[in-house]
Amino acid sequence: MDFMNSYLSENVKNLIPYVAGLQPQGPGWIKLNTNENPYPPSVKVMRTIIAADTEMLRLYPDGESTALKEAIAANLDLDLGLCHKNIFCGNGSDEVLALAFQAFYSGKVNVLTPDISYGFYPVWGDMYNVKLEFRPLGEDFTIDPNDYKDANGVVIANPNAPTSLALELSQIEQILHQNPKGVVLVDEAYINFANVDSAVSLLPKYENLLVVRTFSKSHSLAGMRVGYAIGHPKLIKALGLVRDAFNSYPLDMLAQTAAIAAIKDNIHLFKTCKQVIKTREETAKNLQKIGYQVLPSQTNFLLIKTPAAEELYKHLLKNKILARYWLKPRLSHFLRVTIGTDKEMEAFIKCVQEFANAKQTKQM
Amino acid sequence: MDFMNSYLSENVKNLIPYVAGLQPQGPGWIKLNTNENPYPPSVKVMRTIIAADTEMLRLYPDGESTALKEAIAANLDLDLGLCHKNIFCGNGSDEVLALAFQAFYSGKVNVLTPDISYGFYPVWGDMYNVKLEFRPLGEDFTIDPNDYKDANGVVIANPNAPTSLALELSQIEQILHQNPKGVVLVDEAYINFANVDSAVSLLPKYENLLVVRTFSKSHSLAGMRVGYAIGHPKLIKALGLVRDAFNSYPLDMLAQTAAIAAIKDNIHLFKTCKQVIKTREETAKNLQKIGYQVLPSQTNFLLIKTPAAEELYKHLLKNKILARYWLKPRLSHFLRVTIGTDKEMEAFIKCVQEFANAKQTKQM
Repeated sequence: MDFMNSYLSENVKNLIPYVAGLQPQGPGWIKLNTNENPYPPSVKVMRTIIAADTEMLRLYPDGESTALKEAIAANLDLDLGLCHKNIFCGNGSDEVLALAFQAFYSGKVNVLTPDISYGFYPVWGDMYNVKLEFRPLGEDFTIDPNDYKDANGVVIANPNAPTSLALELSQIEQILHQNPKGVVLVDEAYINFANVDSAVSLLPKYENLLVVRTFSKSHSLAGMRVGYAIGHPKLIKALGLVRDAFNSYPLDMLAQTAAIAAIKDNIHLFKTCKQVIKTREETAKNLQKIGYQVLPSQTNFLLIKTPAAEELYKHLLKNKILARYWLKPRLSHFLRVTIGTDKEMEAFIKCVQEFANAKQTKQM
Repeated sequence: MDFMNSYLSENVKNLIPYVAGLQPQGPGWIKLNTNENPYPPSVKVMRTIIAADTEMLRLYPDGESTALKEAIAANLDLDLGLCHKNIFCGNGSDEVLALAFQAFYSGKVNVLTPDISYGFYPVWGDMYNVKLEFRPLGEDFTIDPNDYKDANGVVIANPNAPTSLALELSQIEQILHQNPKGVVLVDEAYINFANVDSAVSLLPKYENLLVVRTFSKSHSLAGMRVGYAIGHPKLIKALGLVRDAFNSYPLDMLAQTAAIAAIKDNIHLFKTCKQVIKTREETAKNLQKIGYQVLPSQTNFLLIKTPAAEELYKHLLKNKILARYWLKPRLSHFLRVTIGTDKEMEAFIKCVQEFANAKQTKQM
């Protein structure tokens, strides 16, 4: 063991961190690798930031993000009777999820999650001593609700990533019905791009349901790091306890301000989501025309099935187009591509077409 | 056990979180309870935020905060040969410290820290399974370096809080010399208000030294949540690993931008620190005139010794002046008061004088 190694905690020596997609800093890239929104946030976000009283930055922010929680609650279906006490805000949904793993699953066995889902779940499992059990997706990458029963916890992304597929609300309810013992976490990062209903409507019926969302995707605020959870006040309180044993104020003043402006501008949200969905469907059609299989996406990305996925990834990279490829079991024949602007997707399709043509020529 | 309780992780059921000072949202308060700077941040911070390209907020921030790390490194003594590889940035020094506890102390015994110091240290100790051993401060609240030997880790705030006292650089070096086995963490949140030297100059000599700092106090950026650590690249790498197993991007774009502008404006830093120190010395003198004992502060706060601390706290509170009081062993006869503007401290002194007069009248 080298000298420096002796300084480290045991768990850090064996830690396998999550690897996020590349964030190239130079110009000229078409970035279709981290599911960012191709459209800027609402102009109201911009105006709010410019109008912010920066002299007040000398003070700590509101650790409870009360105004933001109220704005989020006001934007939910009023008939559900949810208020700020049902909301927890954090530094991106990643922090919210990490705190939820600590609050509800730490030290537990038999916490269920699909074998193909958000790559951070197994990392948090290792980090916070959770014995995750992975339920294999079907051949077609769908989740079978029958696989999730009597668990001490369930973690499901809906829509799921990187499969892009979604469960119907009735299927989510089936999972809740089958798992009364532990917290059922539904990660709705991509819900605003889907045509299935949010699990939020089930909250009055299931006190063990926690719905997690983010401002990073549909609200175009990845750069400001804001996510939230919606659930029973007792679950929300537990998340607050874990946060307060870690970092009292993980959301800075401008992040709170920006998110409040964003959540209020539903017209901007609907307009940009609609455009992303339209571009997604066109891109899917164009890929099929070239001869690629594409999963029917409910998200702002497409999962393309091709044995030449790695080659295609490298070909795109050479042309300064970033997609996401994983050399992992069951995923090595797939490429994930985020939906960009129409112009970006034209360039992408052109590049894929070139690749397909070259491959065909080679084979002849 | 109630039904909801069964959802929680074992460690959360017994969790005692850190309790931060009150952040009253209404007007009219004189806030002297959380060691915030009474002066706004540099105008360059303001200009940077107004000029920020908010359209880019749709993208994830640079998870490595490279530009900020470079700006911090450039601001250190160039002769030390430190660069961005020696810097780690996080969401306030609280997050940096929490990650350091996980990276270097998790699962370890015999990690030493003073019995009176930053209240978050024991919370992180419990949270991350660190067996902290508390070394009592002397009667005069000073740290004796001889108490820190052969440990698996040492956590020292210098200057210490809430005592306001500082160790000389030679004493910090003695602690490093006596503790080669574990990481010696020196939390320099208040160093810019002190007349002792920073431990940063010892970094080339001790690879197990980690210096932690914050933008919250002397840079007037508590609202933006930026802190950093300076240390050997291998320690810095370990912090990055733990962060990447938790939350890839805890520093948003505007926090990075604001901190870069702040670290570059040393003229503003020196001017405001000098003013705070001047007000501190005047306030100390005025308190002594009234008859109160005050510890010789190296920070932006004063620790006042009085058996009537709780009463005085309540009297101030009634007059909308917030100070910090702890009903804890060894601290219950002390009141901590942050240094505000001259005008705020005049109001504070007036209120303390009233309290002292009333007490004297009662006794007569």
